[in-house]
Amino acid sequence: MATSTLTKLATRVRYDILHMTTEAGSGHPTSSLSATDLLTGLFFGGTFRFDLNHPQNPCNDRIIFSKGHASPLFYALYAAAGVLSQEELLTYRRMGSPLEGHPTPRFAYAEAATGSLGQGLGIGVGIAMNGRYVDKLLYNTYVLMGDSEVAEGSVWEAAELASHYQLDNLVGILDVNRLGQRGETMLDWELETYEARFAAFGWHTIVLEDGHNIDAVQAAYGEIDHACGRPTVLIARTIKGKGVSFLENQDGWHGKTLNREQFDRAVLELGPVDLNLHGTIEPPVEAVPAVWAPVPVDQPVSAKTLSPREAYGRALVDIAPTHPGMVVLDAEVSNSTFAITFRDAYPERFFEMYIAEQNMISAALGFSTRGKIPFVSTFAAFFSRAFDQIRMAQYALDRANIKFVGSHVGVSIGPDGPSQMGLEDIALFRTLVGSVVLYPADDITTAALVRQMADHHGICYMRTTRQELPRLYKTGEEFPIGGSKTLRHSDDDRVTLVGGGITLHEALKAADTLAAADIHARVIDLYSVKPLDLVTLHKAAAETAAIITIEDHYAEGGIGEAVAAALSDVATPVFSLAVRKLPMSGKPEELLAYEDIDAAAIVRRVQEL
Amino acid sequence: MATSTLTKLATRVRYDILHMTTEAGSGHPTSSLSATDLLTGLFFGGTFRFDLNHPQNPCNDRIIFSKGHASPLFYALYAAAGVLSQEELLTYRRMGSPLEGHPTPRFAYAEAATGSLGQGLGIGVGIAMNGRYVDKLLYNTYVLMGDSEVAEGSVWEAAELASHYQLDNLVGILDVNRLGQRGETMLDWELETYEARFAAFGWHTIVLEDGHNIDAVQAAYGEIDHACGRPTVLIARTIKGKGVSFLENQDGWHGKTLNREQFDRAVLELGPVDLNLHGTIEPPVEAVPAVWAPVPVDQPVSAKTLSPREAYGRALVDIAPTHPGMVVLDAEVSNSTFAITFRDAYPERFFEMYIAEQNMISAALGFSTRGKIPFVSTFAAFFSRAFDQIRMAQYALDRANIKFVGSHVGVSIGPDGPSQMGLEDIALFRTLVGSVVLYPADDITTAALVRQMADHHGICYMRTTRQELPRLYKTGEEFPIGGSKTLRHSDDDRVTLVGGGITLHEALKAADTLAAADIHARVIDLYSVKPLDLVTLHKAAAETAAIITIEDHYAEGGIGEAVAAALSDVATPVFSLAVRKLPMSGKPEELLAYEDIDAAAIVRRVQEL
Repeated sequence: MATSTLTKLATRVRYDILHMTTEAGSGHPTSSLSATDLLTGLFFGGTFRFDLNHPQNPCNDRIIFSKGHASPLFYALYAAAGVLSQEELLTYRRMGSPLEGHPTPRFAYAEAATGSLGQGLGIGVGIAMNGRYVDKLLYNTYVLMGDSEVAEGSVWEAAELASHYQLDNLVGILDVNRLGQRGETMLDWELETYEARFAAFGWHTIVLEDGHNIDAVQAAYGEIDHACGRPTVLIARTIKGKGVSFLENQDGWHGKTLNREQFDRAVLELGPVDLNLHGTIEPPVEAVPAVWAPVPVDQPVSAKTLSPREAYGRALVDIAPTHPGMVVLDAEVSNSTFAITFRDAYPERFFEMYIAEQNMISAALGFSTRGKIPFVSTFAAFFSRAFDQIRMAQYALDRANIKFVGSHVGVSIGPDGPSQMGLEDIALFRTLVGSVVLYPADDITTAALVRQMADHHGICYMRTTRQELPRLYKTGEEFPIGGSKTLRHSDDDRVTLVGGGITLHEALKAADTLAAADIHARVIDLYSVKPLDLVTLHKAAAETAAIITIEDHYAEGGIGEAVAAALSDVATPVFSLAVRKLPMSGKPEELLAYEDIDAAAIVRRVQEL
Repeated sequence: MATSTLTKLATRVRYDILHMTTEAGSGHPTSSLSATDLLTGLFFGGTFRFDLNHPQNPCNDRIIFSKGHASPLFYALYAAAGVLSQEELLTYRRMGSPLEGHPTPRFAYAEAATGSLGQGLGIGVGIAMNGRYVDKLLYNTYVLMGDSEVAEGSVWEAAELASHYQLDNLVGILDVNRLGQRGETMLDWELETYEARFAAFGWHTIVLEDGHNIDAVQAAYGEIDHACGRPTVLIARTIKGKGVSFLENQDGWHGKTLNREQFDRAVLELGPVDLNLHGTIEPPVEAVPAVWAPVPVDQPVSAKTLSPREAYGRALVDIAPTHPGMVVLDAEVSNSTFAITFRDAYPERFFEMYIAEQNMISAALGFSTRGKIPFVSTFAAFFSRAFDQIRMAQYALDRANIKFVGSHVGVSIGPDGPSQMGLEDIALFRTLVGSVVLYPADDITTAALVRQMADHHGICYMRTTRQELPRLYKTGEEFPIGGSKTLRHSDDDRVTLVGGGITLHEALKAADTLAAADIHARVIDLYSVKPLDLVTLHKAAAETAAIITIEDHYAEGGIGEAVAAALSDVATPVFSLAVRKLPMSGKPEELLAYEDIDAAAIVRRVQEL
């Protein structure tokens, strides 16, 4: 497309940005205007290749607006491409419109939800890894970043992994407009410092002194080398509010919209706008994604009972042949989480993501948007570090199909101390809308739940226990999501003990002790913490005098509160035994006793009632 | 101290590392051995200055083991310094011992808890900022980092802020031993890549090709320039397991201890060990910390009712004269959180931490360990990004005295959409042991609670509302932590409505509507979500037929579950109205209605009962 046409398209895009934000009364026009020429050039200058009629075409290039607040630009580009009408544009930020304040996949052309800054590059890493190593397609992935957001460490996690995996199909576009929300960025217009940082992180860098000169923009895209073995970043000096004199490079205009009078003045400055002018996006290079047909691996039967974490690794290997969409990611602890078992069997679908959990989650989301089933493992405690990325994944709607597996849960890991103990993981993952939270108490359950997770579309979390736990079930037993198992049961049950993982075994021991004193306790294995088996819990509430939950997790947001809330309309009391004191190093059994969540504590609690 | 003595001390330190880990049966000897010469040189070579008898002397240098798993080295150094006996060393990792698996301040010489990797440098940034800008003392801060952990983005957040704030009193020591937990790091022994990265982030770099040559180590420390306006990093090539032939540079020995036979062999290799040899640490440069005596600022009375976030900013200014220990940190959104009001009044105690939330939290912890009272603000949603740092802060025990303030909570922020909505913040902060969680519903409450937080020693969280909310209370009203306010009350109350923030106002509207239909509802302002006012809640449960909680927060881990759990032994049912559907952009009132948490939904729920 000729420069003059691109310039006219950029004017049209600017008009739409101002129009839709003024109409909405909120939004970020100035942050959109700075990147308008960069993105107009990308979309309509022949670089970006996309089939607008088939957004899920696997060969399409992908674009992620990491600076999600530039959503007016995002939508205006699709209007310029002819797939959004003026009427649709003007629904921006209205309830029910796909054009949300920050992009989400309610809009078909958004890959994922953005708006929490610094996450787009990691999503791009996952999409690029998928293209290079899994689907083996020639598509490229572009990520628009703001300069303020590259202060986020997650950007540098993505940067280091992108170069480590030689993702020359990944392109970052850095919109250096100098101004953040409340003033200057740390680096102002120091393009050379941004360049030095990306170069040190292994990137091919292209510096563009004027991100508003369409010819220069096009020349910069021409410098991208998709065969150089390195990701590329285009670092562009831009002007916030570009195109409207009273907005340009002005502090105090972040996240502010023009009123009608200002809008009219701005439009006069833009000059003639042709709303009938549409740009053309080049079609993708069509090809067929690689097919993975993993050969089943015969795993020798273990002589000993496996810990849940060991069972996790074996289960991943077992399900691979029936789940060719799966990929496995781990944060440099695969020999602890036992993801290593999968790596050894199927190295082509295992990705070492090193100690950079935020990027691992974003990359998993990237894989997921491309139709893969990522299993992501680390110590349960360390998911807390990436909880913003996890939170944002839910807003990717049905594109988020990630299986999180956290090992080393609870005080029962013992001597390593509290920094390594997952004690808030249930609370965190339960908050996600529609999430599944699972907690197996033996190796059979673990294996069954891994398969359940793979077959369930959506965000699932499983916490695995470090220790070997005695086997409770027979091979072939089924563990549907939302179910539970009642392991002790009689007509004389006076109390119900609800446990999961290691505390289920403590509950069983307590029930045996109580039975010797002729106190019968029902024992429920709450392997599905969310959703809960309400039928079984209500039955227990009706048939026994009290329910006691026992969990190796902090009291807040855990099993106790989940059950108490589920039974809050029932008169039967619910008591919670949980971790309430700050833990420390010690032996597992000492710590279970210290926190009053071992069999003895359960017996004491029952006797008190 | 002569090289020969330092060498002998290093041997003694190595012996203790092996001895204590073999005795404990767990721990990370090889990760300790790689840094032994670096740290022995630092401690006893005259660089590190510390008064061992007064660990809290404000003039002491500070050392943080960011690679917390090298705790055996940490403790062995203090044994070599003469403040830990052999008997004490051998309590390593035992229940009740201050020598935990990863350092915590149960050991008096640990500044904070480490063990979740990549956090130490940020803590060091806070301590160094305190020295430079607040206490104005000449102490230096040293941070030992592993090479695996610099994959964490949080390290690069700390790196960029350290250079931005010109912290030439901060020194990173990077132990490049090439091997992570499950194998090679991304960069192996590429010292030049580490150097390029730190240099690009504005650091003075010193590369040490042999981190085991004591003379070279000493020479490297001599190159530190505390007047160069830049932080320094010493990048040292080391060998994991150094000193024991069968451990050196071997994969598979991470986090593994020697058995007795291996220990005996290792000790033979070390050669003569003199356990009576002690090193001397240089004393600190004594000086008096700067005193801050802020002059009260007269704030004009606002003509309009303030939103809670606006009231927050003004309250910070109001309490400054009586709280000279306070510092205020914000993540580039101070004009949204209204921390900017404090910045404008007292710029000398305000620190812009840019969009790097993980480092902001770690730096706040650093300030807190030096006796300051940091107030830390950003959008509530974005604390989720730093929840590992927040989680770890609690393990700093009474050194964590941080006040977190999250703005923009709930779906009621409206058109910006879900990425900006704090909907899990209550759940997250409630999990922390001993935490305080507050939720003001008007400007008067906000101001009172800011003062309460400042006066309460420990971790506090307050969520503030974006919108203006009608004033409910009179100036001078008291809001003790753990209290509540009953705003509607009669002898005929049939139901109790429990709200906080914006939903309290919806509850009041609902109560008015219901009263018109002669249904009397008690209304409780649950401004203290943790701890709860159990007396008032139990009274309401006893006096009304049902309790309905209403919250602009996800159902899990929020107000509803907190109240349901607190009243789980009471027959009165508790019903929860909370955010249960994935939110989207819209008008605040539309979204409150969509989620069934507005006045109409409350009325409907009461009528259903």
